[in-house]
Amino acid sequence: MEGKSNLSFFLHRPGQVSFAEQAIPELQSPQDVLLAINYTGVCGSDVHFYRHGGIGSYRLREPLIMGHEAAGTVVQVGSKVSSLVPGDRVAVEPGFPCRHCVACLSGKYNLCESMVFAASPPYHGTLTGFFVAVHDFCYKLPDHVSLREGALVEPLAVAVHIVRQAEVTPGTSVIVFGAGPVGLLCASVARAYGATTVVSVDIVQSKLDVAKSFAATHVALSESQDPHQNAAHVLRAGDLSSAGADVVIDASGAEISIQTALHVVRMGGTFVQGGMGKSDINFPIMAMCMKEVTARGSFRYGSGDFQLALDLISSGKVNVRELITGAVSFRSAEKAICKVSEGSVIKLLIAGPNETLKDEFSLETWGNGPQ
Amino acid sequence: MEGKSNLSFFLHRPGQVSFAEQAIPELQSPQDVLLAINYTGVCGSDVHFYRHGGIGSYRLREPLIMGHEAAGTVVQVGSKVSSLVPGDRVAVEPGFPCRHCVACLSGKYNLCESMVFAASPPYHGTLTGFFVAVHDFCYKLPDHVSLREGALVEPLAVAVHIVRQAEVTPGTSVIVFGAGPVGLLCASVARAYGATTVVSVDIVQSKLDVAKSFAATHVALSESQDPHQNAAHVLRAGDLSSAGADVVIDASGAEISIQTALHVVRMGGTFVQGGMGKSDINFPIMAMCMKEVTARGSFRYGSGDFQLALDLISSGKVNVRELITGAVSFRSAEKAICKVSEGSVIKLLIAGPNETLKDEFSLETWGNGPQ
Amino acid sequence: MEGKSNLSFFLHRPGQVSFAEQAIPELQSPQDVLLAINYTGVCGSDVHFYRHGGIGSYRLREPLIMGHEAAGTVVQVGSKVSSLVPGDRVAVEPGFPCRHCVACLSGKYNLCESMVFAASPPYHGTLTGFFVAVHDFCYKLPDHVSLREGALVEPLAVAVHIVRQAEVTPGTSVIVFGAGPVGLLCASVARAYGATTVVSVDIVQSKLDVAKSFAATHVALSESQDPHQNAAHVLRAGDLSSAGADVVIDASGAEISIQTALHVVRMGGTFVQGGMGKSDINFPIMAMCMKEVTARGSFRYGSGDFQLALDLISSGKVNVRELITGAVSFRSAEKAICKVSEGSVIKLLIAGPNETLKDEFSLETWGNGPQ
Amino acid sequence: MEGKSNLSFFLHRPGQVSFAEQAIPELQSPQDVLLAINYTGVCGSDVHFYRHGGIGSYRLREPLIMGHEAAGTVVQVGSKVSSLVPGDRVAVEPGFPCRHCVACLSGKYNLCESMVFAASPPYHGTLTGFFVAVHDFCYKLPDHVSLREGALVEPLAVAVHIVRQAEVTPGTSVIVFGAGPVGLLCASVARAYGATTVVSVDIVQSKLDVAKSFAATHVALSESQDPHQNAAHVLRAGDLSSAGADVVIDASGAEISIQTALHVVRMGGTFVQGGMGKSDINFPIMAMCMKEVTARGSFRYGSGDFQLALDLISSGKVNVRELITGAVSFRSAEKAICKVSEGSVIKLLIAGPNETLKDEFSLETWGNGPQ
Repeated sequence: MEGKSNLSFFLHRPGQVSFAEQAIPELQSPQDVLLAINYTGVCGSDVHFYRHGGIGSYRLREPLIMGHEAAGTVVQVGSKVSSLVPGDRVAVEPGFPCRHCVACLSGKYNLCESMVFAASPPYHGTLTGFFVAVHDFCYKLPDHVSLREGALVEPLAVAVHIVRQAEVTPGTSVIVFGAGPVGLLCASVARAYGATTVVSVDIVQSKLDVAKSFAATHVALSESQDPHQNAAHVLRAGDLSSAGADVVIDASGAEISIQTALHVVRMGGTFVQGGMGKSDINFPIMAMCMKEVTARGSFRYGSGDFQLALDLISSGKVNVRELITGAVSFRSAEKAICKVSEGSVIKLLIAGPNETLKDEFSLETWGNGPQ
Repeated sequence: MEGKSNLSFFLHRPGQVSFAEQAIPELQSPQDVLLAINYTGVCGSDVHFYRHGGIGSYRLREPLIMGHEAAGTVVQVGSKVSSLVPGDRVAVEPGFPCRHCVACLSGKYNLCESMVFAASPPYHGTLTGFFVAVHDFCYKLPDHVSLREGALVEPLAVAVHIVRQAEVTPGTSVIVFGAGPVGLLCASVARAYGATTVVSVDIVQSKLDVAKSFAATHVALSESQDPHQNAAHVLRAGDLSSAGADVVIDASGAEISIQTALHVVRMGGTFVQGGMGKSDINFPIMAMCMKEVTARGSFRYGSGDFQLALDLISSGKVNVRELITGAVSFRSAEKAICKVSEGSVIKLLIAGPNETLKDEFSLETWGNGPQ
Repeated sequence: MEGKSNLSFFLHRPGQVSFAEQAIPELQSPQDVLLAINYTGVCGSDVHFYRHGGIGSYRLREPLIMGHEAAGTVVQVGSKVSSLVPGDRVAVEPGFPCRHCVACLSGKYNLCESMVFAASPPYHGTLTGFFVAVHDFCYKLPDHVSLREGALVEPLAVAVHIVRQAEVTPGTSVIVFGAGPVGLLCASVARAYGATTVVSVDIVQSKLDVAKSFAATHVALSESQDPHQNAAHVLRAGDLSSAGADVVIDASGAEISIQTALHVVRMGGTFVQGGMGKSDINFPIMAMCMKEVTARGSFRYGSGDFQLALDLISSGKVNVRELITGAVSFRSAEKAICKVSEGSVIKLLIAGPNETLKDEFSLETWGNGPQ
Repeated sequence: MEGKSNLSFFLHRPGQVSFAEQAIPELQSPQDVLLAINYTGVCGSDVHFYRHGGIGSYRLREPLIMGHEAAGTVVQVGSKVSSLVPGDRVAVEPGFPCRHCVACLSGKYNLCESMVFAASPPYHGTLTGFFVAVHDFCYKLPDHVSLREGALVEPLAVAVHIVRQAEVTPGTSVIVFGAGPVGLLCASVARAYGATTVVSVDIVQSKLDVAKSFAATHVALSESQDPHQNAAHVLRAGDLSSAGADVVIDASGAEISIQTALHVVRMGGTFVQGGMGKSDINFPIMAMCMKEVTARGSFRYGSGDFQLALDLISSGKVNVRELITGAVSFRSAEKAICKVSEGSVIKLLIAGPNETLKDEFSLETWGNGPQ
């Protein structure tokens, strides 16, 4: 690792960042591996942190290395690691659970209260040169899957977790609110699970155009602020009867979407809340009650989700390449976050500090970036 | 049936009722039986209909025979009925599904859109002398179960359906909001399912006193209108850690209860909405999302619920006798509804028009009834 | 219906059949429809009945009209039928449950003990001109699905029911023993459910060739009578690790297949017994116990299976046309059964007596038929 | 720990044992605790090892410290342990999974292929003075639960795991084959889960007498070697209809029990194989298939089972004291195993080498022990 940079990208407070060279971290346990980070994707939550210094109950208190959608290359393995060797290219599941609590032991490690999650204060993220991960949370990429695709495994795992909560099977009809990266991926995963009708709903037509070419069988432009009217419109646009859809997913976090969701789901259907938004909203609770809807929250990803996400990419069932707008160099990290914040790109990747890009995406052509 | 009355109790519009003698109804199918109604319990929804002429989307349009919590005696059986004979005493499941739709064929007949439900317009109820029911929706009472207990099978089936949605097992901790009849029965059913901690929550101390002696291991008087404060108070009162309860049931329909419910349920826990209330409320959706709560609506009762309710009574696991305040004669039907409306009794039964009471409950001692 | 034949094909005793004109049957209930039968497929159980006069506990006692894999055209509808009109082309679910027992009410109508099932003594089947069916067990074919494909809905529903028992999802590895029609369809349905690896196993190489081109990702020729050796061979042929497959389906009924199945299923995996065979076999019970395998029986089809089977055909996910060897005229019914008995064809259809074939499959070219 | 003995009980080969003083073991990880063993129960598998030098694929290769049903007292805690302090009395879950494999991460740690299980070669057991355990696999005993009851948590957890596989709920009918310790505990756990009918079946009347007074509502003496006759007899003895029981558990491992089990389980019912026996048996596979039985293997115990077992003891729902025949001193370990081998006692406990017994159970009065 001589000559290699461990330059890291820190957020200090809303809108204030820095780059600083750090010592290369050491393995904490014989189960760990050291990764050279190749790419980190920019997530909506990165934007939220950059702008607001936190999200939900996670608040920035000290300078924090950002980033958690990462692919890297193994450079060192702990003494008890046999599944990986240096040189292996991996997607990183960036949250390491305690493995000792009731949630962990019952297979719900995403609910572990002692989770060490990348870029969730106080734990540093992957916008750095080298990163230590536990070996079983690194998923080896097959030869035909690129490192850039590898950086998309994380958001795809979010979508996989959502869709698994929804129990989609062949013949199921699914409505997905929100056509950002996670909503798009939910639509594609729902197709992989056999859904025959997948309706993507958004307030931006250009996003729906992407949804239609990517995975949705139908799209609906959300037009009304009245949930009942909106519901009737969405069902019509989706060629669904007024009885409603089997499964409805919210990947938007918007109040009107969630309200509409409860009116488009059928009697006995399933609603999954995947998007983050206001903590409390006006909610049609009696629709949930009298239709016997099962409503589930979905939080991050858990057992089997990362592996399945990688399998879906590897088998071609989900084509994440279509969602990668481009990659930028490490020093452009802040500009990339600002670009995503504008909403005009789908998924930008930030190369690691030791990565040389031959096809750098030009951030200037499409927008102005940070002032 | 000569000499027998088929006097029936009609609601015409809010607060306006009548009694009228009707022809004894005829079997509609060889699968039907004719029942002489012995007792009908008064339900909160009867009170709502009496006062408001409807509930939810069910509206009174023509004079309607009320009542749906009934026990009766078989007087005639159709040509294809072999499971019952005249003289059998039965509890009646008062909603007859179509048996041909997707919901019915998949075992979710309570979600049948063609349901013929007693006292739901336009279908008449059981506050009458004789009632036609489909044979498999009549549950024969064992000798040691009284007809009055039989009239409690219906509300107990509501509670059974709620608790089954909640997947209560031994060792589970359960919080039940609301200590009216259904909330009390939920607490008792949760105990029968093995719950070790059952916390009943209400805003009326006297109801909590009943809950404590009936089934709850702990009670909590709801004190605050702040859901977070209320949640902390309920968990303390229930000797539960701040991690929360495995299962939370709302049998109140009150907004503050539902809000609190989402804050007292643990990560990965289950919330069941059983109570009827406002159609839309302010709801902590992000608590549901980030704790991965499964929230389910519960509507009436379905496959197996009535039989299990009867088994719980028969085996002594749920002692419904403790909840029967008393029985009144048929001509006191309106007074009984008004008495229940006052909130000072738990469960009043109205005897059928051919029933002679030796122990009539005095409605005057405790209140004034309708003016 | 004047001028139309209701010629019917009767089995009298093993190997002895007759054709006889019958009165056109009448609707038994206002929920019924009368169908003109267009095609009936020949099933392995028909062969078994033809040869042995019964199967399992079902024994022929009186002459029986055979056939149960049917597609037909509605010619008359009962007074309560609104979902179908004369002229509609339908696939027939050929077993009509009682709708009143515990199994029916709980959504498990395939377990109804009062099932009226076509060609199961004493109930007549579909090798006849006209057949009465309950309307909700007739599934309207979309315009682009042919009546011949419609006759394949029944065996596909068998496969759907098996695969649903197996809980196949994307990423799952599946091994299917048996490459007859049901085994082939199981492989295809498993793919539709997202299985990435589907290994078909048989003792006949030509059947495996069909399996490979139809749906299997891998095939394995069963070579050994030692289940452990056979298991090792199947896992190798399927590129599966020695840990085993997630799901194993037996669609063969053969003892060696079932024994091998328990040795190729992984720890915690699922085994589904779909094929019929000997009533008692030597079974590796400790493998099931110590690997915590879930083993399930699958019997016919139930709630939602027929509709899903039709959806899979309609959406092109399962291409049943590849399995239809050809159609023969009604008078060739016995020859068709004998041909299937030889094992050289996959699925033969027998046209209804009023059907004129332009492309009759020549039974003579490929074999000798009955002597 | 000065002055304390770490005397250990080794099995060298079938029937040949030794006692040897060992160094007190050291903590292997900061998550570990050191326990002074107070009691270890004798299990049927200990007897099997003692007699045959192994069980299933587990074979003795070097001298092995036996014992795995243990309760102990914490004497030292690792640096990362906050849930326990020295002096705490605990039941020990004696198998430590790897926490990194797919089985572990999915909540099925009992299926971990790297499990370190006490007294399973090459890992030593609890018939020793001091034992190192991972902290989260030690369950603190409430003050009112004795250390002797604590040693019963392990076999009770086996029963809990079996019953949880069986999905017993209120109203369920359960048949348990085998009335040894695990069978008795299964019957009691099934009652705690709400089973209304629990039929214990055995070939020894005295065991049935214990079963009846301990937990069973009915008992049946297995009389016939014909499974169909046996099935009819068991159903009659259990006051169950010929339709069969909802749930059937085999805790015997006997071929005739398993065969009978498949004939007494109802259509759509559940069978759980909990007992160890011959690796392959004659099995009524078509009964499983055509009744759509779900058959599950149960292996050891997993997530939540130990805690629930302790809760059932603590709450009085399962009274394990009734099953404790008595305790003997450490030097009587071999005699205790021989006594259990005779079948005349239910559960014998062996005190740790530092334990002084005031009520030593006299092995001589009831039998002869090893020659």
